[in-house]
Amino acid sequence: MRHYLDWAATAIPDEITQEGFSYGNPSSPHTEGRLAKEALESSRVRCASVLGVKAQQLFFTSGGTESNALVLHSLLLKKGRGRLLYSGIEHPSVRENCLRLKRLGLLTGAIGVESSGQVTENTLRRALEKQSDARFVAVMGVNNETGSLMDIKALVSLVRVNQSEKGPALHFHCDLVQALGKSPVDISTWDVDSASFSAHKLGGTRGVGLLYLKNPLEALYAGGEQEGRIRPGTENVQGAMALAELLERRASTETVKAETEKAKSRLNYFISELEKIRRCALIPEDRMKDDKRFSPWIVQIRVKGLPAMVMVRALDDMGIAVSTGSACSSSSPERPVLAAMGLDQFSRLEGLRVSQGWSTKQSDFDALLSGIEKALSFL
Amino acid sequence: MRHYLDWAATAIPDEITQEGFSYGNPSSPHTEGRLAKEALESSRVRCASVLGVKAQQLFFTSGGTESNALVLHSLLLKKGRGRLLYSGIEHPSVRENCLRLKRLGLLTGAIGVESSGQVTENTLRRALEKQSDARFVAVMGVNNETGSLMDIKALVSLVRVNQSEKGPALHFHCDLVQALGKSPVDISTWDVDSASFSAHKLGGTRGVGLLYLKNPLEALYAGGEQEGRIRPGTENVQGAMALAELLERRASTETVKAETEKAKSRLNYFISELEKIRRCALIPEDRMKDDKRFSPWIVQIRVKGLPAMVMVRALDDMGIAVSTGSACSSSSPERPVLAAMGLDQFSRLEGLRVSQGWSTKQSDFDALLSGIEKALSFL
Repeated sequence: MRHYLDWAATAIPDEITQEGFSYGNPSSPHTEGRLAKEALESSRVRCASVLGVKAQQLFFTSGGTESNALVLHSLLLKKGRGRLLYSGIEHPSVRENCLRLKRLGLLTGAIGVESSGQVTENTLRRALEKQSDARFVAVMGVNNETGSLMDIKALVSLVRVNQSEKGPALHFHCDLVQALGKSPVDISTWDVDSASFSAHKLGGTRGVGLLYLKNPLEALYAGGEQEGRIRPGTENVQGAMALAELLERRASTETVKAETEKAKSRLNYFISELEKIRRCALIPEDRMKDDKRFSPWIVQIRVKGLPAMVMVRALDDMGIAVSTGSACSSSSPERPVLAAMGLDQFSRLEGLRVSQGWSTKQSDFDALLSGIEKALSFL
Repeated sequence: MRHYLDWAATAIPDEITQEGFSYGNPSSPHTEGRLAKEALESSRVRCASVLGVKAQQLFFTSGGTESNALVLHSLLLKKGRGRLLYSGIEHPSVRENCLRLKRLGLLTGAIGVESSGQVTENTLRRALEKQSDARFVAVMGVNNETGSLMDIKALVSLVRVNQSEKGPALHFHCDLVQALGKSPVDISTWDVDSASFSAHKLGGTRGVGLLYLKNPLEALYAGGEQEGRIRPGTENVQGAMALAELLERRASTETVKAETEKAKSRLNYFISELEKIRRCALIPEDRMKDDKRFSPWIVQIRVKGLPAMVMVRALDDMGIAVSTGSACSSSSPERPVLAAMGLDQFSRLEGLRVSQGWSTKQSDFDALLSGIEKALSFL
């Protein structure tokens, strides 16, 4: 019996029905192609309906990483570009691509974070004041390591005010990979210019993602005419259908609200029990039960004196799956997100990510709590 | 009963067993992750074994289009780059990305083709003589519209001779999407520097491809550490497993040889019968039965006086699926491949692509022949 508490890395896959799949190439002009095209477009409409946006604003990609890269590298084709600002807690697929663009001559700049790991109106305002040539802002919705929550609506408003004062158009990009199905997502009201989503974090197929674009952009990678030329390559119709099905099942406002309440109650229980164990702490240390600054689906903890890599292995042997940082940079000892929060190097090495999903039970947390106590008994 | 003769657009999907799949994220350090990583790496070893290359030279991507884009855009990070040459018959995912790079300031140049639609030693030699600052050459293995076959081994040899005389290293990239499973593929002996493959053309899952790299390169799109940092993003383990299974089933030297003989015999029959129908011709007109210049899996035909778009629709109504050009640019009236072969605008509009697969039967061609006669009877 395994206890899987690494849902932020990937979700346990859901059953998907896939009714109405056609093997045709959606770009082909014959019946097989037309049926595939219809399945693809109806998937797009279903996704758009759940997300409250127009179908023509959604583009199927190969995942969250590609969605982020696509938006960022489109800047290479834009004339008159200014500075690209990104927060210190962004996913590697934002951070590393911003560094690539810097190498290619684009101006970049940092958006600081609070010790809670949040980008707030304060930190964003400071960044915009310091870097008044900003044309692009990237701030994620929910951090993948600590679960810190950003008030995207407020951040976009701040950018828009800044924009109308200073003149030039400012693009706000939001990585919502960890938010989908686990936090309220209202991209249209928030008024973001672009947003990234991943299917497999929702229990869907690997290799499928979504990109929301308020207005079309010109993508760097070219090829065929698929996805409005924004994402060329034969479309993954089955993946798109699965994503539509899962969005309807997992990401409606009501479901997210109900599931988040359950997740919160499980996490509150875990935090209460963890507080009783010596050497254990949350990251940041002042995170509390029902803390509105964090998503209840992800919590970063530490067991003082035990490096995270040791804990991950010890717990794995006891049947419990947790992780250190992002799976996408699991082999790196660096923890840039925790560093941005101001944690010293020693504490960073102890940071352990615990993330839950819709089928997580209190017993999974009980197993983790016992596992931690057992690991501590060897000290 | 449908007659599917558009296998160059996409293959009819094969049954895949998918034994040993684990839902873990291959980058995660726990058991679920390790099992997924093992499944991914054993898929890579299986693919490498069929292709006769080292496992560490293969990278899973989201498809042929991305594989092509990835290699081409890596040039943006390369210092001291010279001219990028590409042939007039390349797939849109090569052609359009070369045009993007040109816009970004890279030097580009053309490689001409024979009226057969082939890049030959002659046309490549002329291109290299004319453009002695070439650093990159892109020539596909099998053309997706006409089935014209390139002697990649001879072309690479020519490039290598040119290279040793002139000094600078020359990269040879080969799009082998239409070759895999349908033509001999021996990338290691041919000595190409990179090659692209797609899973769905082999009956596999959409959204999966392979990139062969003789030596690692630095990819433009960055992110996590997956696939040796060459293709970031959570790996599509199921897709990779399916591709490995299909490569073993479809792409071994013996199977390709045997299946190609069958395809040749079916195509010879079709060509013989087509010759008897008025107004019908092959493109190019001098293509013959058993023509070594062409792959027997793809044939471009025309029915004089009937535009291809009309024929595609008329045949579709009769239950037969054929196409015009590449599915990837199906909505465009342009036919750059046929134009490169020297066909006039009128003939280009009549070009109809017929492409077969392993489950194609003579009866499918019989249906097409009757369909053409029926369409002609309305003239």
